[in-house]
Amino acid sequence: MAQNARLQGLGILVLCSLLHPAMTTAQQPALNLMPLPANVQSGAGSLRVDSTFSVAFTGYAEPRLERAGERFLRQLARQTGLPLALKPSKTAKATLVIQTDHASKEIQEVGEDESYILDVSTASGRLRATTPLGTMHGLQAFLQLVDVSPDGFAAPVVTIQDKPRFPWRGLMIDSARHFIPLDVIRRNLDGMEAVKMNVFHWHLSENQGFRVESRKFPKLQELGSDALYYTQEEIRDLIAYARDRGIRVVPEFDMPGHSTAWFVGHPELASGKGPYEIERRWGVFDPAMDPTSERVYKFLDEFIGEMGKIFPDHYFHIGGDEVNGKEWDANPKIQAFMKSQGIKNNQELQAYFSGRVQKLVVKHGKVVIGWDEVLVPGVPKDIVIQSWRGQASLAQAAKQGYRGILSNGYYLDLGWSAARHYAVDPMSGDAANLSAEEQQRILGGESCMWAEYVNPENVDSRIWPRNAAIAERLWSPQEVRDPASMYARLDFVSTRLEWLGLTHRTVSRHMLQRLAGSASSAEFAALRTLTDVVEPVKDYTRERTAPAEPTSATPMNRVVDAVPLESDAGRRFGELVDQFVASSCHDAAAEARLRAQLTVWRDNGAILQPLAQRSFLVKEVAANSQDLSALGAAGLAALDAIAKGQPAPEAWKAQQLALLEQVKKPKAQLLMIPAPAVQKLIEAASAGGACSSPKS
Amino acid sequence: MAQNARLQGLGILVLCSLLHPAMTTAQQPALNLMPLPANVQSGAGSLRVDSTFSVAFTGYAEPRLERAGERFLRQLARQTGLPLALKPSKTAKATLVIQTDHASKEIQEVGEDESYILDVSTASGRLRATTPLGTMHGLQAFLQLVDVSPDGFAAPVVTIQDKPRFPWRGLMIDSARHFIPLDVIRRNLDGMEAVKMNVFHWHLSENQGFRVESRKFPKLQELGSDALYYTQEEIRDLIAYARDRGIRVVPEFDMPGHSTAWFVGHPELASGKGPYEIERRWGVFDPAMDPTSERVYKFLDEFIGEMGKIFPDHYFHIGGDEVNGKEWDANPKIQAFMKSQGIKNNQELQAYFSGRVQKLVVKHGKVVIGWDEVLVPGVPKDIVIQSWRGQASLAQAAKQGYRGILSNGYYLDLGWSAARHYAVDPMSGDAANLSAEEQQRILGGESCMWAEYVNPENVDSRIWPRNAAIAERLWSPQEVRDPASMYARLDFVSTRLEWLGLTHRTVSRHMLQRLAGSASSAEFAALRTLTDVVEPVKDYTRERTAPAEPTSATPMNRVVDAVPLESDAGRRFGELVDQFVASSCHDAAAEARLRAQLTVWRDNGAILQPLAQRSFLVKEVAANSQDLSALGAAGLAALDAIAKGQPAPEAWKAQQLALLEQVKKPKAQLLMIPAPAVQKLIEAASAGGACSSPKS
Repeated sequence: MAQNARLQGLGILVLCSLLHPAMTTAQQPALNLMPLPANVQSGAGSLRVDSTFSVAFTGYAEPRLERAGERFLRQLARQTGLPLALKPSKTAKATLVIQTDHASKEIQEVGEDESYILDVSTASGRLRATTPLGTMHGLQAFLQLVDVSPDGFAAPVVTIQDKPRFPWRGLMIDSARHFIPLDVIRRNLDGMEAVKMNVFHWHLSENQGFRVESRKFPKLQELGSDALYYTQEEIRDLIAYARDRGIRVVPEFDMPGHSTAWFVGHPELASGKGPYEIERRWGVFDPAMDPTSERVYKFLDEFIGEMGKIFPDHYFHIGGDEVNGKEWDANPKIQAFMKSQGIKNNQELQAYFSGRVQKLVVKHGKVVIGWDEVLVPGVPKDIVIQSWRGQASLAQAAKQGYRGILSNGYYLDLGWSAARHYAVDPMSGDAANLSAEEQQRILGGESCMWAEYVNPENVDSRIWPRNAAIAERLWSPQEVRDPASMYARLDFVSTRLEWLGLTHRTVSRHMLQRLAGSASSAEFAALRTLTDVVEPVKDYTRERTAPAEPTSATPMNRVVDAVPLESDAGRRFGELVDQFVASSCHDAAAEARLRAQLTVWRDNGAILQPLAQRSFLVKEVAANSQDLSALGAAGLAALDAIAKGQPAPEAWKAQQLALLEQVKKPKAQLLMIPAPAVQKLIEAASAGGACSSPKS
Repeated sequence: MAQNARLQGLGILVLCSLLHPAMTTAQQPALNLMPLPANVQSGAGSLRVDSTFSVAFTGYAEPRLERAGERFLRQLARQTGLPLALKPSKTAKATLVIQTDHASKEIQEVGEDESYILDVSTASGRLRATTPLGTMHGLQAFLQLVDVSPDGFAAPVVTIQDKPRFPWRGLMIDSARHFIPLDVIRRNLDGMEAVKMNVFHWHLSENQGFRVESRKFPKLQELGSDALYYTQEEIRDLIAYARDRGIRVVPEFDMPGHSTAWFVGHPELASGKGPYEIERRWGVFDPAMDPTSERVYKFLDEFIGEMGKIFPDHYFHIGGDEVNGKEWDANPKIQAFMKSQGIKNNQELQAYFSGRVQKLVVKHGKVVIGWDEVLVPGVPKDIVIQSWRGQASLAQAAKQGYRGILSNGYYLDLGWSAARHYAVDPMSGDAANLSAEEQQRILGGESCMWAEYVNPENVDSRIWPRNAAIAERLWSPQEVRDPASMYARLDFVSTRLEWLGLTHRTVSRHMLQRLAGSASSAEFAALRTLTDVVEPVKDYTRERTAPAEPTSATPMNRVVDAVPLESDAGRRFGELVDQFVASSCHDAAAEARLRAQLTVWRDNGAILQPLAQRSFLVKEVAANSQDLSALGAAGLAALDAIAKGQPAPEAWKAQQLALLEQVKKPKAQLLMIPAPAVQKLIEAASAGGACSSPKS
């Protein structure tokens, strides 16, 4: 308890140290920690990590800690290539000594103590935490600290006092639209542990699939899943796996909409006549549960009872989003019910449904969590709102006394950059003006991986590394928000995440190899050059620009499926152009690098062209390849114009900008990322002033 | 049986088609098959492989074939990214229809019919085989045929009539010196299946470890394995996994030498006094079983009985190699026994031991296989010799009536190029002069992965892709031996093997990332540039040049552990130099590419240098990096001299060659592969003649 109080007192220190990065001495390399801790004090020197490295646990002991220690040692061995003894030491003499005060709750709760203190000296390390949750976070921080050094592997001397800003830091994975096997889920839980996320929100039912074995209602999975579902035993194992990593598992069964797959086996739950089939398309569909049927509530009572036993978490997600009401409108019995009960519209009807379901959830000892739509007048105050609508919606809920978490701004499927997600803060906008008490109700946030365009193969690459930036947003102090620092650390963390078994980087190469077939090494390099600077279209453009209506049977083997959602090469090129232009075009080193890059791009199309003749999947990006060559040529022309020292003619500029407008148009559902940076060069070339003056 | 006879008749066709590659029409791209089939007839057009692709089995049915069909469909889905139905069709209407005539033996035998005929037309595919073994080989051939095309994924129209040249095509993995976990073994079995190898020889006991659970003698694994061993259940599972892929599992328990780990728990078996500890060093050591002790034979009788039940294969490998005899010399009881029995020397004593053990193996229903040393006068003719000594030894054995397999020339740990292994033929040298009957006794060969310098992390990269070239040597007709064709196909197969789960390419990048730490992307690229053109020292040089005596606890995280054993970039550079010199230095395109490459090398050292300051593991290769820069500069100077059109001065040549002698010296246990090619440029520059004449 004393420990607890001491950690509570760290809040102020935290902000000071983070607002003054100068406190990190200049001799020290930047620490590759992500999320950044609440408080870091760097010292001189480092702790050597060699084959004799050992870990010992003191204080509170439990098997989960032993396993965490073994996992830590295995990961440290992988990270260093050292043949370490993979069992924690039985004595208190060890390189890293860990003190845990007491147990955490058997069923992990929101707001449990997750703090830890990590002291690394040149002689040893010491990790202290109130509960195993903090211990596990501290072990992850230590792993991030260890790196190769001039003298061997080492962790820098440092004192970290850390605790999370928000108690609810989640990742939602939609396993319903495309089924995601357990090994993929498990490695994503490993990734979550590494970046200190603590809630796995599992979206388990949808129009396109019902993914859990029900023993009470086996037709749910037998007819609603194409035989792709998790058995109860598998789920129990996964929950244990998550608990071992300090992660809660919150199940979501979306109702009354998004529920076609339930109705294949149980048409009696639906508001329409049926029969129903598993939906193969994407979108919002008509089928919805019948809110006027007592059979529905009896079914849900038993179902929630059964699922509540499998999923021990205190929270139970009932979805509630995107009901279009068409089946309700078309059903005379439902219309009669509404009239008799004085229910004026479908929103009120959904409120009635939510209220009934909420009581069932409470009856089975759980708290309801649902999307914005479940917040309707009269809903009890203990429910939690997950907001896809945004901070204003969240703030309004908090004012009314409801707790909430933010997901708007954290939709991983929209293809935003890490920086854009990183800039989204649960406490910004209307939330910033809440009272302290109201702000307490904002529990955190969840990133969401909706699965229309992800499958087991590429899902890692749609979650990572960007999810690590969201994890930092939810853990680190609000003042930690420099995107340059974030990107520098993200690159490092991304590598480390692959060592854990995530495949977000390697899969892209594998998928490109597939669509390149027996390309020569030069052709494959050219394909990489192109695919390194394109990104899939953003937001919901992919639906709108699809050549044919996409379904769950549409192959995901195209370039748009293979490339990362964020182009590192494109971002770096943009930074280099900014640096060059900011030097009034006098930075000769930057210019040389720009020229080299632009030349490669200009010449790339010719190399790639034969491969486009041989592969239909490369042919799809032939226009993108031409665009890249044009962009290279335009950029080089701009640099030539700048070198001449005269403002380029207006006609030239107009022509180049017209070209760029063409290049900026998505093709094959891909965006050409360096286009705006090349536009800056063209504008600099024609601007007059320093950028078109002869260099000094 | 008619089928069988038809396939037997293919032998002659085979050679014709392969000696006349012109039979493959010029319109067809080369087929990426490895091993190349005995006979291929290419046609026009291709069979489209899309989401409707299906497989059906007809004729003989067994669960193993069903599983092979599912595995095939899964792999095809991975290879194409198509959402295929992953169960074989229940009707005979399918894209690929498979006919299997009858079962293969319950326990797979040497020389079973493995032939298959694969017909691909534009409308469908048809695979026919006598037994499931051939069916599985044919499925692998079909997978290799499918590639991306201008119109979608497709398999070319082709008729393949195929059967193996040798019945014994093995890979030996030493799981004893470094323990190799089962998941790693399994993915290597997947790789073996892909290239049609059919024997997994499992080296299970060594001075450094005893890796199998014995229930009769549990002290073997309890005291002899550091808790790193396979349980009997795990072994049974692995054997089933191998059988599913048409692979026999031959266990090796090396005796009477290479056996220190047995003696930790059972010192009574040894010829010395003990006590014994698990050996941590590498090499040949003194401990050996006591050939004069009846207790030893009683023990081995029970032990072989127990192991013979776990490993169903008809062959049982007793090792027999490298006994130095020192414990025998030092033991008066053994000396007395020799005198009393008229045994003149240690070789005869080992023959006595081998004879006794051979009888025990036969008693338990097995046939002995052993290394060359077990072949001593009087040993029964049914034993099989595995020759590490070479074709002469093998031929001698065959003349005496013994069957044998070749491993000399196939030791993967020696770091040879694929081409060098590929050139080794079991029927060359003395074996070429054997009679037909004697040649029948040469059953094939086995590649060997000895594990002093491999661990679970890098073992894939030490086996693959080179093992595929050996697999082709053992399957394809003897006339198939063009290294250029082999390398072109190997590159393709190597990619495909990674899709199966092997990590031979990705692991190298991971290991380099580890030793690069938080390198910038430019620094990491420079590290890749260097490591792309070095290879670990060959043969047994690594032992001899080790900075400190290596042991099983020595970390394997250095550059020498991370880089592939064969440098593709180095080989390609050599080919380009040859092309340039062959053009009398007039090939301008080749010159431009050489210049570009040499310039990158020349400038690489400066980029890498700061990283060498930060990482002790990069620092180790600082001298190699300087060498590469020097090589780049020397090569550029040679090209400049050639361009001048005058023979370069002798003094210059001498200076450059002296530099090259320095560069050729191994540093950090690495060889600089492009050095000989740069030497050719220097010699061309100073030769006079066409290469130093002005270009026409």
